[in-house]
Parts: sequence; C-alpha cells; structure tokens
Amino acid sequence: MKEVSITGAYQTQFGMLKTVTIRELIFEAGMKAVADSGLTLDQIEMIYVGNYASTDFNDLNLIGPYVASILGIPNTPSMHIENACSSGAVSIQLAKSMIATGVYKNALVLGVEKMNTKAPDETMRIIAKGGDPEFGNSLSVSAPSIYALYATRHMADFGTTKEHLAMVATKNYANGAKNPKAHKQKEIDLPRIMKAPMITSPLGLHDVSLVTDGAAAVVLMPSEDAKKLHPKPVRIIGAGIGAEDNNIGNKESFVSLLSTVRAAQKAYTEAKVSPSDINMAEVHDCFTITEILDIEDLGFFKKGEGGFAVAEGQTKITGKIPVNMSGGLKSKGHPIGATGVAQAVEIIEQMRGLTGERQVKQTDLGLTHTLGGSPGIAAVNIFRKDF
Amino acid sequence: MKEVSITGAYQTQFGMLKTVTIRELIFEAGMKAVADSGLTLDQIEMIYVGNYASTDFNDLNLIGPYVASILGIPNTPSMHIENACSSGAVSIQLAKSMIATGVYKNALVLGVEKMNTKAPDETMRIIAKGGDPEFGNSLSVSAPSIYALYATRHMADFGTTKEHLAMVATKNYANGAKNPKAHKQKEIDLPRIMKAPMITSPLGLHDVSLVTDGAAAVVLMPSEDAKKLHPKPVRIIGAGIGAEDNNIGNKESFVSLLSTVRAAQKAYTEAKVSPSDINMAEVHDCFTITEILDIEDLGFFKKGEGGFAVAEGQTKITGKIPVNMSGGLKSKGHPIGATGVAQAVEIIEQMRGLTGERQVKQTDLGLTHTLGGSPGIAAVNIFRKDF
Repeated sequence: MKEVSITGAYQTQFGMLKTVTIRELIFEAGMKAVADSGLTLDQIEMIYVGNYASTDFNDLNLIGPYVASILGIPNTPSMHIENACSSGAVSIQLAKSMIATGVYKNALVLGVEKMNTKAPDETMRIIAKGGDPEFGNSLSVSAPSIYALYATRHMADFGTTKEHLAMVATKNYANGAKNPKAHKQKEIDLPRIMKAPMITSPLGLHDVSLVTDGAAAVVLMPSEDAKKLHPKPVRIIGAGIGAEDNNIGNKESFVSLLSTVRAAQKAYTEAKVSPSDINMAEVHDCFTITEILDIEDLGFFKKGEGGFAVAEGQTKITGKIPVNMSGGLKSKGHPIGATGVAQAVEIIEQMRGLTGERQVKQTDLGLTHTLGGSPGIAAVNIFRKDF
Repeated sequence: MKEVSITGAYQTQFGMLKTVTIRELIFEAGMKAVADSGLTLDQIEMIYVGNYASTDFNDLNLIGPYVASILGIPNTPSMHIENACSSGAVSIQLAKSMIATGVYKNALVLGVEKMNTKAPDETMRIIAKGGDPEFGNSLSVSAPSIYALYATRHMADFGTTKEHLAMVATKNYANGAKNPKAHKQKEIDLPRIMKAPMITSPLGLHDVSLVTDGAAAVVLMPSEDAKKLHPKPVRIIGAGIGAEDNNIGNKESFVSLLSTVRAAQKAYTEAKVSPSDINMAEVHDCFTITEILDIEDLGFFKKGEGGFAVAEGQTKITGKIPVNMSGGLKSKGHPIGATGVAQAVEIIEQMRGLTGERQVKQTDLGLTHTLGGSPGIAAVNIFRKDF
C-alpha cells in the first residue's frame, strides 16, 4: 500500500452566486486544482465527483463525464459519488484507496453543488430527500427538528446552554469574516444571535447553516510523486467512514452522533494518532449543536464538555484546538457535495500558510469531518503536513 | 492484490411492478444475495449501491444508509455510486478493488431502480438528464435520436439493414421468453417487428429497451474465502472503465462506441484473455443497433460484421458467442442502476447451470458490458467459473 498525498488544492468563491453556473464552478475548481498539482490535465487518470443532487438542482445527472468534458479531458474515466453531505469527503477516501493500491497513479476529486436554483421550499424538499423517507420525511421530520432533539437532550444531560450554541455561531462568523471565499463574511455579536427568530426550539436562525453554491477540488497521488511535483504536499494519513441508523426513530443516543464516533475510530487507528495530537479541525456544523457534538465525538473534549469548551474559547483560532477556521458550514457555507473537499482545502492552505488573518500557528496535523443524512453516515479524514 | 470472487447472487423479478415499492426490491435482492453468499448479514463490511435517479423517481437520496437500514444492518457503512446505466457495473468494479487491496473483507453490491413512478414524459425527462445538458438535452437530442445517428451511419458504411436490427430484437425476445424474471416474456416475430411504429428512423418501437423496475445484488470477497463459503464461486478476472465525450456533437466516430473499446481493452488486459476466449456475454442493448455496435467494439466480430453475424444466428444461445441470454435490456428489462449487477447475476447463474431453457453449454468465461449517457462512459467486467 502506497502513502497518498494531495498536491493540487483549490476552492471557488462560496455564496449565493446567482450569475455563476455549475459549469463555471466545475471549470474554475478543476482547472485551478490541476494547475496547482504539478500534473497536466492529460495526465489525470481518474475523476471522482462528489455531488448530492445536481439532478434536482441543475437537471443534470451522470455528472462525471460532464466534469471531464468541461475540463477538456472527455476521455478520462469518472465516477459520481453521492453520500449526501459527506459526498466530497468520501470521494477523497475512495481516491486515496485506489491510488494507495496502485489502481490509478493519480486522481482528481471534485466536489460541487449549485443549490440556489429553486424556490426555498423546493430547495428544502431536495435537501430533505437525504433523510429516511418512510420514518422521517413522511412525518415532516426535517434536519432542524432532528438536531433540535439532540440540542434539547444535550442541554438536559450536561447543562449546555443556548449561549453555548450562540458562541459556536459567533466564533464561526468571526472566522468567516476573515475568509474572502466565505459565503457570509460578517461578524455577528452574541446578543443579536440570542435574539434571532426561532426555527425549531432551541435552534434559532443563527444556529443553522447556509444554502450555498460552490466547488472545490484536490489532486491526489502517491506521496513519493507528490514530493517531486510540489514543494508543499499534504499527506492523507487516515480515513474512516462510519454509519448509524438514518431513521431518527432508531437512534441509540441523542447526545452523541455514533457515525462520527465510528468513522473517527477508524481514521485515528489508521493514522496512528490520538485526538489530542490534532492541531486543527474542520467539522460539520450544519447546526451549532452539531459542532458541539462533533468536538466531543471526535475526542477533542469529553462528552458533555463541548459547550463549555466553546464558551472558554478553546476552539477559537487562538485556542487549544482551532475548529472551523474557514468559518465552517455556518459562515463559509455549505454547498453539499463540495463541503468535504473544501474542508480539505482549508486544512491544506492552513498548512501552507496561505490563510492570512485566520492562520493557525500549529498546523502539523489537521482533521476534517462531515455528516450525511439524519445523520446516517460520517466521514473523517486526517492530514499531515509533509514539508 | 487478492483475487476476488462472487458467491451470493440474486435478481428480483423485473417488470412494470406497480404494487412493489423500492423498499421491497432492495429487501428481496439484498437478503437473497446475502443468504446465497455463505456470510451472515452482520458480517457484511461495506455496501455499494448502484442507482441512477432514486431522487427523481422515488424522492429518495442518500440511498446507501436506506439500503443498510432495510437489510437490518444500519451501522454498516455504505456508498452510492451513480454512473447512469453503468452504475451497477462500476459499483462491482469498485467493490472488487477495495477487496483486492484489503480495505474490506467483503462487500454487498446492490443495484436498484424503481422507474415506473411517474408519467411517461416525466420519466423520459429524468432519463435524459444523463445526456450532455448544454449540447444534448437543451437541443432535445434524446437517446433514440443519438442511436439513430449511429444506426444510419453503420448502415451506410457497412450495409447493416433494418432486418439486422430486428433480428437482435427477435433473438432477445426469444431469450427473454425463456427467463421467468424477464420484464417481457413473449416472442415477437420478425414481420411484426419490421412493421412496428417508427420512433426515430431507422429505430422502431421494438428497437428500443424497456422502462423497468427491479433490483439485483451480489456479494464479493477474496477468492480464497469464497471457495470455503460457496460450492460455486465465480471469479472477477478483469474490470475496465472507459470514457468518451458525452456530447453528441464531439463524437470521433458514429460506427464505434469508443468508451466500450477503451473499457474492454483494460478488462481484457487485466483478465489476460482475448475476445475469442469469451463464452457468453450480457451487453448493453439499450437499442438494437447498440448490441451490434457492442459485439463489434468488444471484439467478438470485426467492425461492420455485427449485423451479419446476428443474421447468421452467431449470437443466439446455440451460436458461436451467445449474447444477452437473459433477454437483455430489450426483454429482461432495464432498471438503470440494477442492470450491470443483473448482468453479472445472469453470467453467474449460467455458470451454475441454473438457467433452464436458456442455458448455454460452454460457460467458463463470461463478460458483461454497460454504457452510460450519450454514451460517455462504459464498464466491462469479465468473470471466470471457479469450480
């Protein structure tokens, strides 16, 4: 098994990009990532495309050959991976495995979602298709309702407060304000967040992530090749996928996301590192409570202590373990298929010292984490600076 | 790299199954394939789901965890692969690679499509999303129009006739009539096919495949384990994916599907066999002309001689190289995501001597072939009897 590294890495502007087509997002992310990779386009052997619902949002299915064609390499094989919000992260895992084992010499992984194409209620209906169809969607149990249950239970069991949730939002807004590619580049203070309209109690308007257009891409290859082709390669040292029942009626816990726990265990084992070794993380903050669950389930803090850790500033850029330096799904935005790839790009740019005002000091080991569904699936990837 | 074999293999009834839900299709295929595999459900390490458009047909995305949950193993990780009509075949390839390299000890590959849920024009619109969106769909260049171009050019260059096309249909209808799980189990004679209403000249009603509901599943594991667990394992000795521009305006040829040629070359090379070694094949006859192109591009016949070979009966069950013994997409039916997996099931059941009246004599080496898009992608898998 070969070690695998990323050389090329790029994220487009994220936002509600009314005048930008999915074609343009794909072109920009793919061309720039390959340009950064040290390879030429015609050397790319395989394309993995992470995308949730271009068939719904863009009347486009079989997105793999579309990506290949846009990049001018229509004869390059491709595969479309759909695992809801973990589509991009899982595509990176797949590319890593196929290169580690010598099936391909390299691969382009491109995550994309152009979501702002429909009326808001139709958009919500498309997103809700990732829930359990018979025991979730049919009972109108949407994502905010689900995570509100987790928030309520977490508050009851551990004393987590609405202020703790709000402080996740203030932190991520503050980080996003320092990220020129973030969807929302504006700090919002605690009082305003606390007073925001309620969505599903206890989650208010600022506890919820964004509906975003964007793309991101990375180029993977054996680490020995990466060292020759790029001055600042980043190695993927661990990757794990974990599952739990996607049906909200069958959850074993409402204070822990077990898919995260299972994915993290696999990734840490492969990487031979422990949570305390990680210098920074991009995690799936689809809701503010989710980030609190994540940082506990990933092992950065003990179960029940996540909200307090946030309140103490331990997850700020200057804290013990910076979390969502990019602004996260809350502020950088959440183009579903792109998110896992964009998280990797943030980790890589942090390691390369390219992140300006939001630069973290210690960047040797970084972790990304995405969830998919209600949630039914999680993916954790661990990266090591290799220069 | 480990050798990989299939033990469990199962296909549901194919058809316009008005009273059968996608949930029931998944349950039957998954349970029966695992029951045939020698493994128990809780031993399954990974699930790959081949599906084209459950989000459109069934308001269901993130289908992986849904499959896991239906099978009663919700904590088993999963991944949804979408490569249009090659989704199932590519899922098998992926599972093979991941097992060959030791990432997983086994995997369930389940292909499914429940298509008969919408009005016919809406169904056609969903299928057309697999074409090139800007230079195909927007100009209403649908699949029949595209393959009519190939038929016209093939006829002009090689003297292929409308009777040749019709004889592909009579053969596949005759084979399907012997397959109790086929969508259409009825022989139709040449005169009736020749007189059928025209769809897109020269393709008539009987030159076109069906809109089908169905599922199929296989269980893969290292060949050394398969030999211990099943008396009749079947080895996957070659797998290839090939691409060409999905935009009909950019085709290099209208008498050859280059994605097939490229996929076949890879599969033959890996399998260390040549086309003349293959005993039987299930190929992508989305249209009758496509089967003629396929049997040439796969190397069974010289370019231009496919139609004449069909007319001579060389592709009948009793012929030199039996093709689409199951009835093919034309008669067995074409539930998009299931097709590549169902083809593998037919090859395996032929090797196991379970195919009754449509049984082929020589069954040592079998090949499956699927196309996706306009077409933009092809997958070829080669199987060897291992008992």
